[in-house]
Amino acid sequence: MEKIEHLGIAVNSLEEAIPLYELLLNTKCYKTEEVEREGVKTAFFKNGPNKIELLEATHSDSPIAKFIAKKGEGIHHIAFAVSDIKAEMNRLKNAGFQLLSEDPKIGADNKWVAFLHPKSTKGVLLELCQERDQ
Amino acid sequence: MEKIEHLGIAVNSLEEAIPLYELLLNTKCYKTEEVEREGVKTAFFKNGPNKIELLEATHSDSPIAKFIAKKGEGIHHIAFAVSDIKAEMNRLKNAGFQLLSEDPKIGADNKWVAFLHPKSTKGVLLELCQERDQ
Repeated sequence: MEKIEHLGIAVNSLEEAIPLYELLLNTKCYKTEEVEREGVKTAFFKNGPNKIELLEATHSDSPIAKFIAKKGEGIHHIAFAVSDIKAEMNRLKNAGFQLLSEDPKIGADNKWVAFLHPKSTKGVLLELCQERDQ
Repeated sequence: MEKIEHLGIAVNSLEEAIPLYELLLNTKCYKTEEVEREGVKTAFFKNGPNKIELLEATHSDSPIAKFIAKKGEGIHHIAFAVSDIKAEMNRLKNAGFQLLSEDPKIGADNKWVAFLHPKSTKGVLLELCQERDQ
């Protein structure tokens, strides 16, 4: 794990949250993107070597809608950049961590992604992500 | 705000969580430190340009104990590195964000710190931190 690639924040409304985070982080949102399979619309901000990702649910079954219903708006997950996601998934699986999928999936922002179950990480939803070839 | 300085994770027991996070992040904990005034024991891990901070409450009135009682173990706050904490506090106050203190306080890891209230940031407890002169 090379650095925090991004921090994901669950919000009720991107329309409200984007201008607020532009003010907070003192930078413009540089991309919005919908990930239909995950039921989310995302908005990205750069912060030095890291990014902040705001997440809004697109339907009530979306993991983001369920998260907000249970815990309220707030920090949803942390994503670490890795150079070889399959090797890192194997390393963590062998170390006893619980992965949410056997293989990497296509995520937002042109990434291969995989998640670890919060039960195996002291309550933290942890994402691994690797840049996809263009 | 220059980068994510660290991400703070609330845990029940550092004794349990430190070896788990050493395995997870594939690096040794490089420092533990108690911040008596805040009622926390902390443990730090480096991850490229960022850090992970684990937080254990030292008594039942500690903000970490209250957080875990309400939300369970998990991500507690995000801290951004700033070069001039007073200027950044003024900028954010003037922009309408709610600060938890008028002045910076001495925090863990040789930092001046200040927090923003989650009510003004879509549920995110956000810390500003600036390195103190040695």
